[in-house]
Amino acid sequence: MTPACAPIMEAVLAANADLLPSYGADPYTLRLRSVASEVFETPVAIFPVTTGTAANALALAHITPPYGGVYCYESAHIATDECGAPEFYMGGAKLLGMAARDGKITAAPLAAAIAYAKDMGVHHVKPGSLSLTQATEWGTVYDLAQVAELAAVAREHRLPVHMDGARFANALSFLGVSPAAATWKCGVDVLSLGATKNGALCAEAVVFFNPALAESFERRRKQGGHLWSKLRFLSAQLLAYFHGDLWLVNARHANAMAAALAQGLRGVRGARLLQAVEANEVFAALPEETVLRLEREGFLFYRWPFSGQDAGISIRLVTSYATRSADVDAFLAVALRPPESG
Amino acid sequence: MTPACAPIMEAVLAANADLLPSYGADPYTLRLRSVASEVFETPVAIFPVTTGTAANALALAHITPPYGGVYCYESAHIATDECGAPEFYMGGAKLLGMAARDGKITAAPLAAAIAYAKDMGVHHVKPGSLSLTQATEWGTVYDLAQVAELAAVAREHRLPVHMDGARFANALSFLGVSPAAATWKCGVDVLSLGATKNGALCAEAVVFFNPALAESFERRRKQGGHLWSKLRFLSAQLLAYFHGDLWLVNARHANAMAAALAQGLRGVRGARLLQAVEANEVFAALPEETVLRLEREGFLFYRWPFSGQDAGISIRLVTSYATRSADVDAFLAVALRPPESG
Amino acid sequence: MTPACAPIMEAVLAANADLLPSYGADPYTLRLRSVASEVFETPVAIFPVTTGTAANALALAHITPPYGGVYCYESAHIATDECGAPEFYMGGAKLLGMAARDGKITAAPLAAAIAYAKDMGVHHVKPGSLSLTQATEWGTVYDLAQVAELAAVAREHRLPVHMDGARFANALSFLGVSPAAATWKCGVDVLSLGATKNGALCAEAVVFFNPALAESFERRRKQGGHLWSKLRFLSAQLLAYFHGDLWLVNARHANAMAAALAQGLRGVRGARLLQAVEANEVFAALPEETVLRLEREGFLFYRWPFSGQDAGISIRLVTSYATRSADVDAFLAVALRPPESG
Amino acid sequence: MTPACAPIMEAVLAANADLLPSYGADPYTLRLRSVASEVFETPVAIFPVTTGTAANALALAHITPPYGGVYCYESAHIATDECGAPEFYMGGAKLLGMAARDGKITAAPLAAAIAYAKDMGVHHVKPGSLSLTQATEWGTVYDLAQVAELAAVAREHRLPVHMDGARFANALSFLGVSPAAATWKCGVDVLSLGATKNGALCAEAVVFFNPALAESFERRRKQGGHLWSKLRFLSAQLLAYFHGDLWLVNARHANAMAAALAQGLRGVRGARLLQAVEANEVFAALPEETVLRLEREGFLFYRWPFSGQDAGISIRLVTSYATRSADVDAFLAVALRPPESG
Repeated sequence: MTPACAPIMEAVLAANADLLPSYGADPYTLRLRSVASEVFETPVAIFPVTTGTAANALALAHITPPYGGVYCYESAHIATDECGAPEFYMGGAKLLGMAARDGKITAAPLAAAIAYAKDMGVHHVKPGSLSLTQATEWGTVYDLAQVAELAAVAREHRLPVHMDGARFANALSFLGVSPAAATWKCGVDVLSLGATKNGALCAEAVVFFNPALAESFERRRKQGGHLWSKLRFLSAQLLAYFHGDLWLVNARHANAMAAALAQGLRGVRGARLLQAVEANEVFAALPEETVLRLEREGFLFYRWPFSGQDAGISIRLVTSYATRSADVDAFLAVALRPPESG
Repeated sequence: MTPACAPIMEAVLAANADLLPSYGADPYTLRLRSVASEVFETPVAIFPVTTGTAANALALAHITPPYGGVYCYESAHIATDECGAPEFYMGGAKLLGMAARDGKITAAPLAAAIAYAKDMGVHHVKPGSLSLTQATEWGTVYDLAQVAELAAVAREHRLPVHMDGARFANALSFLGVSPAAATWKCGVDVLSLGATKNGALCAEAVVFFNPALAESFERRRKQGGHLWSKLRFLSAQLLAYFHGDLWLVNARHANAMAAALAQGLRGVRGARLLQAVEANEVFAALPEETVLRLEREGFLFYRWPFSGQDAGISIRLVTSYATRSADVDAFLAVALRPPESG
Repeated sequence: MTPACAPIMEAVLAANADLLPSYGADPYTLRLRSVASEVFETPVAIFPVTTGTAANALALAHITPPYGGVYCYESAHIATDECGAPEFYMGGAKLLGMAARDGKITAAPLAAAIAYAKDMGVHHVKPGSLSLTQATEWGTVYDLAQVAELAAVAREHRLPVHMDGARFANALSFLGVSPAAATWKCGVDVLSLGATKNGALCAEAVVFFNPALAESFERRRKQGGHLWSKLRFLSAQLLAYFHGDLWLVNARHANAMAAALAQGLRGVRGARLLQAVEANEVFAALPEETVLRLEREGFLFYRWPFSGQDAGISIRLVTSYATRSADVDAFLAVALRPPESG
Repeated sequence: MTPACAPIMEAVLAANADLLPSYGADPYTLRLRSVASEVFETPVAIFPVTTGTAANALALAHITPPYGGVYCYESAHIATDECGAPEFYMGGAKLLGMAARDGKITAAPLAAAIAYAKDMGVHHVKPGSLSLTQATEWGTVYDLAQVAELAAVAREHRLPVHMDGARFANALSFLGVSPAAATWKCGVDVLSLGATKNGALCAEAVVFFNPALAESFERRRKQGGHLWSKLRFLSAQLLAYFHGDLWLVNARHANAMAAALAQGLRGVRGARLLQAVEANEVFAALPEETVLRLEREGFLFYRWPFSGQDAGISIRLVTSYATRSADVDAFLAVALRPPESG
């Protein structure tokens, strides 16, 4: 819902200056590859696309055979919010959802699920790939050891590892590690890198850390209708996104706003945080009266189905680079206001 | 694993006598449609195919849009044992698994799941169809009221109703009702009718109770590579299957053998039946020592993962038209034998 | 290769002002539907997407069954330049290419091809839809009677009619008729409306003239990864595109530049125009010496395989809203320069 | 249309004797692999399926990426008679039809088409595989040098080579060479081996000469619904097919009958053979009066659209293992009978 941030809009305008080659042969796109390789400290193949759904679906289709299965969290965005895009792009492969209280699947059940598939043989889809969401759908963040342990199980069975990084910059900020440390150094093969939620106009990217794995990916992107003729406008956004660590600056701010919200909500009588607040999302159960009051005063947020035992109503709050401290304060002021007497 | 039964083999041989038109224009195939219409007491469109997987996948693809979802039991055969065939044939649609202790999903959670999908809008696949397995994967049987109640929810939201009837004859025998009563009269639109497990060589069929719904289905079958040039050999099997109620005779026998097994197992110390035995399958937890003894003596059955608290080992026993009372007795004799002392 | 034109860039900037609802619930997108309905003089359903390939593939998938065939010109863009995107989105359907000297297929062979398919029955894909390119791949334009005649054949067999309008504004300008006259009034059901080649940054749209035909199209778009979260940026481009007839102003200029090029090339000794110049493309055979000279002087154009008997080299010249008279003059000056002597 | 031949029906009956493991773990299926490896003089991976359409579509999907293209004769069975099955199974890949007067494509245009694709880059599907039909749709047979030359072009560009061998035994008989010589020794990687048209009840097979290429093919077969639970019935047919060279005996007879027909037709005034008669098909143009007379007398054959200049009507005659000399004589007697005077 947020606008694009100023440096990215300026980059789009600047990219409009000239007549430039189409379909990715422009200097912006060429430069993006070298910049991204510096950012990730290894030669990468990077493919800008328009939406996170496209990034995920194309990446998964590229690393999973059509008779394969993708191990993922059972309520991962790819499984519940993309209208079957991964299944459509994969052409037969299945998402194999795994339970996880905090959105983070773990190594032992993953190993067990793969073993079960192998027992079942031809009746079961072939273990095909692993997809982790970082930060997770619950605003939590895998630490590096957790990613590495999951990736080790995957590698043992030759499954490529995908990371859905729609909120990757938020995870990076929380972890305080380098992009390389958070990805290929702990076993990630391909990253869906989100920018749209973190300040871009409409830019996401698929990043392969092993360029050999990217072979023919540009045809897949074209076949999905995701190759822009004026690709420079996408590439320019991503260049601006990396420039001067804009992505991290934006994410750090969003995370700080979420932390402030969480901190404030701890003071609301009857409220409970449902998950650790490690990125830019806050999941909280609030008294019904409080939720109604916030809605009445015009704050926008989702009521969120949550299978806990809490009284009250569960909600999701999302912050962004554009969230101001004053917004947080205004929200908390209403939340903290004591119930009016009848 | 069983051979084909004698009347069906004879029918195959008889169909071999002549030079006959190919691709379904033969008299066997033409007759099959009228016979099936008599059996189901309504004009049906019936399409013989080779495997149950093909029947299910083709039927579901025909009634579910590629951006749709199929509500089914979370461990339905279509979801766990067909290597992604439904997803492959549907081209993007998802199976939406629902929990059920005994393999029988129920109306209230179905209605809730559909309501949730509608709330989610474009991010969620469109509620597309309902698939029920009859008899279920746990050897239980939906009664007619249960089917009707589920079908009513489906119809309210315009979802066609599919029945995976790999063991349909066993369910019919248990219910003691007519084929019509068990299908279209309680809201089923299309049936995957199994015969291979119940005495045929290799025959299944997709039966549409509303022939308008079958429009162009023959092209789908052809496109899947499931149109035999010598289709008479499939049709002849199904004619024999219906002839003289062979299908019911076979199923009744298989059910009786399962009932005898279940009855006998009740006498095994430490054994517990895990599900009601209503068709030709028995799920039981037996002491480990008993299971090992049965395996040692050469009986073939699956160990079955079951998420209960039982001690011992869970197994699945399947009977067929070819199971003899003597086979049951022999099995029970070993099962009932007291543990040998050290 | 051209930049986006000023009014469209301004519209993108203006759309960035506010926090607005995502996924198409914003006021820009809502307004686009009513503006487009005015432009086309009938209530339309309009879906902005990012690329022409996406528009075509999504539209064709929506109107063609997966066991169907799309009748089109054998060298249509959908058949030769989209890396199989239509086939991928349609999930089994085929493009059935028809010959046409000038890119315009005709009614009699279309009727014959449909009749042949019906004779072949289940072995042939089902006649599914008709796709016309307007303006064509050869820079020619169907007149309204030609479209109507083709659409009448399609309607007789219940085939929806798709128009690939990547250069629709150029065709409109040439025909000098209303958008309504050029589409639904002569039988077109769904239009891929191009804007990117005619001044937009990255905007195309699928326009359904029968909104009932658009049912669930938004899920297809989502499943393809083509639903922008910040959809307002696409919708704003299209609003600007229609505003003050910008699309027609741009197209008229591009057409005029092509006409000027064609006129000038008539004066080149040994040159021949290969097709009528009715939109913004010029196909010409030029002496090899002339082509080499133009390339040497830095003019950019494709050499174009053409199966004619002409001596020399066939090339394609494309003009745009951004082509200046001076550019045309400079090109012609070089083309008209007599060969240098030895 | 022909019945299955006696040895194959006997094999089916014999396979019915016992309770045997399902899904291909039976001794028939195990033996088939070693027998086929002997027949082809190299270790093969062989997968029985039910129809030729399934064999072709599964094989092509396995060797062609979803963004790839299959080079084939423009009127190949896979392109015109399988209702889009290859496209459906391949999930986006295209058939790239090439012209050929006698059904046999040639190396130079193949090389040119691949070069063109490479020039077009991402807009064109990736050259994916080559499919040859042996014997061809016109009853002609590639000689070994022709196959080798085409395969060499394919190998140069790393395209696997598929042979549609629905009439492979007929081609072998004509060529008088070994199965090995006709396949892997001249560059074929995977063969769709037909048996149904040559005496089987319903058996075809996909044969990989490089077993590594067959990796995971069994999952693809399962996903297509083409894995029989009672697979022994398919395998037994193929064992009988190879036993005592039954396949060659049958094919030789069919070829001889076609040759006799062709020889006889040369004596019909006004008749012309349209193609060389090298397998079990005869394409001939006959005077209309003769064709009508043959139809009146009950002979069954297709009128065949043929784009030649011949007067009269083009027909296709197909012989089989079951065609008797007397049948040929009867046909020729009617064909040779002089027109009755008014």
